[in-house]
Amino acid sequence: MPKYVYNFTEGNKDLKDLLGGKGANLAEMTNLGLPVPPGFTITTEACRAYLRDGREPDGLQDEISQHLADLERAMGRRLGDPADPLLVSVRSGAKFSMPGMMETVLNIGLNDESVHGLAKQAGGNERFAWDSYRRLIQMFGKTVLGIDGDLFEHAIDEVKRAKGTTSDLDLDADDMRALVDTFKGIVREQTGKDFPADPREQMNLAIRAVFESWNAPRAVLYRRQERIPADLGTAVNVCAMVFGNCGMDSGTGVAFTRDPSTGQQGVYGDYLQNAQGEDVVAGIRNTMPLQELERIDKRSYDELLRIMEILENHYKDLCDIEFTIERGKLWMLQTRVGKRTPAAAFRIATQLVDQGLIDMNEAVTRVTGDQLAQLMFPRFDASGHTPIAKGMNASPGAAVGKAVFSSERAQELAAAGEDVILVRRETNPDDLGGMIAARGILTSRGGKTSHAAVVARGMGKTCVCGAEQLDVDLENRRFTAPGGVVVNEGDVISIDGSTGAVYLGEVPVVPSAVVEYFEGKGDTSDELVAAVDRILRHADSVRRLAVRANADTPEDAARARRFGAQGIGLCRTEHMFLGERRKLVEDLILASTDEERQAALDALEPLQRRDFIGILEAMDGLPVTIRLIDPPLHEFLPDLTELSVKVALAGEQASEKDRRLLEAVKRLHEQNPMLGLRGVRLGLVIPGLFAMQVRAIAEAAAERKRQGGDPRPEIMIPLVGAVQELEIVREEAERILREVGVDALIGTMIEVPRAALTAGQIAEAAEFFSFGTNDLTQMTWGFSRDDVEASFFSRYLDLGVFGVSPFETLDREGPGRLMRIAVDEGRKTRPDLKLGICGEHGGDPDSVHFCHEIGLDYVSCSPFRVPIARLEAGRAACAAAGSDTR
Amino acid sequence: MPKYVYNFTEGNKDLKDLLGGKGANLAEMTNLGLPVPPGFTITTEACRAYLRDGREPDGLQDEISQHLADLERAMGRRLGDPADPLLVSVRSGAKFSMPGMMETVLNIGLNDESVHGLAKQAGGNERFAWDSYRRLIQMFGKTVLGIDGDLFEHAIDEVKRAKGTTSDLDLDADDMRALVDTFKGIVREQTGKDFPADPREQMNLAIRAVFESWNAPRAVLYRRQERIPADLGTAVNVCAMVFGNCGMDSGTGVAFTRDPSTGQQGVYGDYLQNAQGEDVVAGIRNTMPLQELERIDKRSYDELLRIMEILENHYKDLCDIEFTIERGKLWMLQTRVGKRTPAAAFRIATQLVDQGLIDMNEAVTRVTGDQLAQLMFPRFDASGHTPIAKGMNASPGAAVGKAVFSSERAQELAAAGEDVILVRRETNPDDLGGMIAARGILTSRGGKTSHAAVVARGMGKTCVCGAEQLDVDLENRRFTAPGGVVVNEGDVISIDGSTGAVYLGEVPVVPSAVVEYFEGKGDTSDELVAAVDRILRHADSVRRLAVRANADTPEDAARARRFGAQGIGLCRTEHMFLGERRKLVEDLILASTDEERQAALDALEPLQRRDFIGILEAMDGLPVTIRLIDPPLHEFLPDLTELSVKVALAGEQASEKDRRLLEAVKRLHEQNPMLGLRGVRLGLVIPGLFAMQVRAIAEAAAERKRQGGDPRPEIMIPLVGAVQELEIVREEAERILREVGVDALIGTMIEVPRAALTAGQIAEAAEFFSFGTNDLTQMTWGFSRDDVEASFFSRYLDLGVFGVSPFETLDREGPGRLMRIAVDEGRKTRPDLKLGICGEHGGDPDSVHFCHEIGLDYVSCSPFRVPIARLEAGRAACAAAGSDTR
Repeated sequence: MPKYVYNFTEGNKDLKDLLGGKGANLAEMTNLGLPVPPGFTITTEACRAYLRDGREPDGLQDEISQHLADLERAMGRRLGDPADPLLVSVRSGAKFSMPGMMETVLNIGLNDESVHGLAKQAGGNERFAWDSYRRLIQMFGKTVLGIDGDLFEHAIDEVKRAKGTTSDLDLDADDMRALVDTFKGIVREQTGKDFPADPREQMNLAIRAVFESWNAPRAVLYRRQERIPADLGTAVNVCAMVFGNCGMDSGTGVAFTRDPSTGQQGVYGDYLQNAQGEDVVAGIRNTMPLQELERIDKRSYDELLRIMEILENHYKDLCDIEFTIERGKLWMLQTRVGKRTPAAAFRIATQLVDQGLIDMNEAVTRVTGDQLAQLMFPRFDASGHTPIAKGMNASPGAAVGKAVFSSERAQELAAAGEDVILVRRETNPDDLGGMIAARGILTSRGGKTSHAAVVARGMGKTCVCGAEQLDVDLENRRFTAPGGVVVNEGDVISIDGSTGAVYLGEVPVVPSAVVEYFEGKGDTSDELVAAVDRILRHADSVRRLAVRANADTPEDAARARRFGAQGIGLCRTEHMFLGERRKLVEDLILASTDEERQAALDALEPLQRRDFIGILEAMDGLPVTIRLIDPPLHEFLPDLTELSVKVALAGEQASEKDRRLLEAVKRLHEQNPMLGLRGVRLGLVIPGLFAMQVRAIAEAAAERKRQGGDPRPEIMIPLVGAVQELEIVREEAERILREVGVDALIGTMIEVPRAALTAGQIAEAAEFFSFGTNDLTQMTWGFSRDDVEASFFSRYLDLGVFGVSPFETLDREGPGRLMRIAVDEGRKTRPDLKLGICGEHGGDPDSVHFCHEIGLDYVSCSPFRVPIARLEAGRAACAAAGSDTR
Repeated sequence: MPKYVYNFTEGNKDLKDLLGGKGANLAEMTNLGLPVPPGFTITTEACRAYLRDGREPDGLQDEISQHLADLERAMGRRLGDPADPLLVSVRSGAKFSMPGMMETVLNIGLNDESVHGLAKQAGGNERFAWDSYRRLIQMFGKTVLGIDGDLFEHAIDEVKRAKGTTSDLDLDADDMRALVDTFKGIVREQTGKDFPADPREQMNLAIRAVFESWNAPRAVLYRRQERIPADLGTAVNVCAMVFGNCGMDSGTGVAFTRDPSTGQQGVYGDYLQNAQGEDVVAGIRNTMPLQELERIDKRSYDELLRIMEILENHYKDLCDIEFTIERGKLWMLQTRVGKRTPAAAFRIATQLVDQGLIDMNEAVTRVTGDQLAQLMFPRFDASGHTPIAKGMNASPGAAVGKAVFSSERAQELAAAGEDVILVRRETNPDDLGGMIAARGILTSRGGKTSHAAVVARGMGKTCVCGAEQLDVDLENRRFTAPGGVVVNEGDVISIDGSTGAVYLGEVPVVPSAVVEYFEGKGDTSDELVAAVDRILRHADSVRRLAVRANADTPEDAARARRFGAQGIGLCRTEHMFLGERRKLVEDLILASTDEERQAALDALEPLQRRDFIGILEAMDGLPVTIRLIDPPLHEFLPDLTELSVKVALAGEQASEKDRRLLEAVKRLHEQNPMLGLRGVRLGLVIPGLFAMQVRAIAEAAAERKRQGGDPRPEIMIPLVGAVQELEIVREEAERILREVGVDALIGTMIEVPRAALTAGQIAEAAEFFSFGTNDLTQMTWGFSRDDVEASFFSRYLDLGVFGVSPFETLDREGPGRLMRIAVDEGRKTRPDLKLGICGEHGGDPDSVHFCHEIGLDYVSCSPFRVPIARLEAGRAACAAAGSDTR
């Protein structure tokens, strides 16, 4: 039989899997000799057994009894002793912090008899005892019995109103006793049973409630959003009560060992006299800055500072702390490595290095790519602006525009050149057009997995969702914010996708200092910039993955290089076919003879060559992987339905050009263009097309060499599914390269599942593989991002089919498994095969770690995400070397 | 160093890989003591080395010299000896017969000196000697030197014309001597060099020419069509010449041990006096029936019959033979297991069993599913009809209709209810509409991998292609056949896709006797029917794979059962949403409230239930796998472009219904519907849809049980990519089954690559897997059949990217590998997991063998292909037991 219960003296901070974060840290503090009230932790294993079997595992009650007896011995009091009762708290504590998601019950052990004993313990403080009792009934009622908490709050308000006060400090012992009666009535009325007077029954019910809270809907949702596995379970901490609410020499507080917003060292925290912990959280009374504790109780204050120093040195990180002072005696109730803002994370990491607490490897693991990304978005300069509401930060960015309330209106105004924010209660697939047209999306309902959030993230569009304080009135095209602020269609609003804040009017946007620095416009005199720079440099020095950028223009290439890119992993050539050149592509498509087709190709070649010269120049000395044309030709032509309607309406008047175009569009129309005539297939079917592109690349490289440059083009063939396709293209490409007298690697995208499955063969004709994980994900899952993100991803996230969209983070079991196969079998054929990724996953933190694990040589991502990929590649290397990056 | 040359006495018939078919069989006959002229075989390994390195492998010349010396010793003559020369033939011989594709040179060893020696050997027959010499120059010139053969033929015609004769028997020794001079002149003129007089040089050049003929375009094309691997290479046989052209007591012939058209035992063959082998093939003179040899040369005739009996008993199969009689002495030049018609194949197999030569297992391997398929098509009763032309049998069937020359016209007439045959020079993607509308397709260009052939096979449509005798005049909408037969648009023609024959007028179509028998309308008094029945019964008794049918209606189900199906592997439910029920589906889609949607579902449920009752009744006692609705909803609505044009043209007059429909069509429109909202996704997004279907299945089963039936429904969830999807649907389905009180297996299609990759997880929620290899092929290759078959498959087959369309035969390296993974990992999770295939590959011979190999439990295919699958499953079992099924 496993051991289900651990005394605080038995655990340590590394047992988070078993004891949860809170339990492990309480044990750690106990062993550090810090003043922690004694107690014990019931393991996550017990919770899992309970949830699996629907009942407590055998032996758990015995173990609890034993540890309770130890606790009673240590405290010299017995649970439920009417004369001198031991009271305990029951708190949840999972491996990963889930703030506000889980349950806590304080003051267990009180009933109509022991309340008198508690008063006696508190030197006859009757008010304290009855206050504690009513708190027990209130928390127990709400948490364990599932009674609406407002019923209790209303009863308190009644009493205060009757006394003509707004502070519960003005309520006296009699008021509290009366409230206990009222609360007991509420319990009886709501549950049909009396509040349980037996302390052990209170405790058992509370423990079970904590177990069950693991599967409460809000906890399930939170885990899904934070990607916390659903099967961990929570531990339960049973701890002797200490009281912050037994007089003005008592109190409770929270503290940080340094400022979680900036990383500044100092004393940060709040303190509330004569209160229990939930009062601070509930915001019933105003707290005082922690510094004031020095004035009130210097001994406890100094002791607290001493302990904070111990903790920071011990944890080698910012810690946050909950503490209680009971009649001048300081007790530590909780500590953990504290959350912090992205800016603080970078500063703290380097500060800790300077203090000699951690090394640079560790510092790299202390920050994340997501945090760096937050620092790279432009931000609102919101000084002087107060949000009118707050929602969830669903997709980052700072967007300003006129509020509009329908997809149609969004498209109209956007077409007229206006910036708009689409405001909806919630979005659905019909809103897609409006979402595309808008600068940002604001909804009053739905969480981070709602349709709006999922689609906006997919588009990289700013989104605040679930701003429940807003009353959106679609019919009258307006919304109302708290305080009666009314925003009508056309009014300008600003939404902050990084914080969830909604502002009335235009809030000025300031560029990111970090980006300014990368761009060469800032310097490292800014402490944050210096910290980011230092950490990135170290990441660069330890990472094994190179980082390239996806860039199609010389401008993007130059920018990517400034951001640290070590080459281009994906230069798409089809973008070069747009704009004024579209006419030439039309000629190519409409060509009815070999001569006409060749003429169109001949006209395109010098233009492509010029493009390539520019990019090779911007990336001089670094590899530039150029992908031959990928999309189907009809993408360069008008839409079938629109053109059909146009020609039909024009009737006899339809132009010859339009008729010919319509014919071509019809001929090239495909049911499923993603699965149609594109990529290498196009190259094999349209004579001269790939040859023209290869020649343009070769001649551009030759020209760059003549200019004294060091061009390093790599030719990438898209959509290969069989080695034969590649062999045929390769043969022609090699001939052209020889003719022009230029060297270039020739390789292929691995984006079709069959390419991964036959990678061993394909590697015979490829000098490099670049995983096109967008298409690989689409084909492995059998869904097209354009079609399905809007139609069912939100539902799938809600149902838990995905924890995260496979387009955001590489799905290791699907496309990821194919990548592993391709890496293993490709390298078996060609040990020096160069391996990279150029799908959007190349800039996603978790996916970068996966790429490191499976042994790729580089990742390639959008220029903006290059620093993020550099950091994560460094973190992956450090993690592989043994640090914990979680 | 490998041994590159084998004496005929060193080989045997099982060494075909090394010695080729001809060489192995010459060795076998030599060892049987039959009169084979002595000689040796140069191995395929030597050929492969030559083709790889571009030169003969080291040591080959030495080995040839050695064997040549042995041959000279055996024959008592030396190559090139002017007085008494040894002559040899050099013939190709690959593992698989490639008739007419490869090269032969006879009479090697002749020159201006040795021709006299040859005349002496022939008792002073000067004409024979010079005839042999001119034959050498002619064949050598054409085959080895690449000179246009017509040049030589014209020269012969000249001489004949000058002599006023049409038979070359009328040419005398002087004429032949003159021809030798003329031919030498042609060689000099065409190559700039003299005809090589050195016999060893002649031989070496001829051997190299045979090696190189392996890669001649026509050989490459043939191999691709016949799916013969491209890397086998050919062997070369060097054999002492014997002469059928040294007088009227000499001659040459071909024979079969039984009738290759019917299997009838008897004497079948042709004989030509005073001739060499190529004269028979060239058809220069009329051959005589083999029976007449008895009259001319009874001794040789009896000897031949004796040898044929020995061969058939030895090979235990029909053999075909080439022989030569040199002045009354019979020589065997070749034998092999002979080709035969499908009907003969079945008859011969059972006849051989009755003769005690083979057992039934062997008989099963002697016939193929393709042969059985040929026997199941309706056939033309062409007695009294003569084909006006012949093309390639590109896609089987018998089609009759009016000739039309454009896709538009085909569609017009078909829309008016007429049967049409689309006639084109060649087809391209623009012809797709016409091909769909036509009963059959006839082209004058292109082979079995042409666009027309590939697309027609994909559609299961009759096609004759490459009928090069036809002159197709598109402008005047007519074609001209040999003999000046003109067929104008609208004239009725008949095309036979099984033979390639083209007839003028309507040829009556007779149903297949085999199908009539399956349908219960024929009996086994027909010898062919009896043979098919007997072989199929034996296949049934040995096969491990069960065979089910894909059927959506009670009629199809009943038919499949008559054809031997052991259940339904795929019953599609979406077909049940068409016709008059379309209205209800529209209601479902247009529903704007939960109530409206539920009302539409409630109306559909009893209709679906009725469908299921019928199918379960037809398959009473056998499993019926019912797939829940798979296609996206918009497939039940009008086409976006058509409806857009209709509404646009109607303007203000557009009906409210059309407007609402258009809105829905737009909302549901997808870029890539195959990768969109369909299958299980639809089931998870549209509340009640799957539940309605499951309830209809459960209640149908309950009703059948009340009727005393034995319903065995299995519920199949389509398009699952993650186990979570299946778990959610399964939970609801199990609840409904419990409510109705019915049992049913619940399983899933494996058709999305990710499903195969995570099969170990999916098997936890699935009691069976059915491989949907159509979609699995599409997604693994990343192409949609509808889009790409017409646009590039023909090109891909020409380029050799595919040997055969992956939609015809399962691609073992792509989807096949995923199937292996799914089988292994699925069974690891759930050892009794039921595994089947329901893609169209379930009826393809090679794919059935693959399914056997990887251990599936059953294949499921269209009712018509059930007997074919039964046969191939039996063959697979026999093959696994050790027989050679090639």
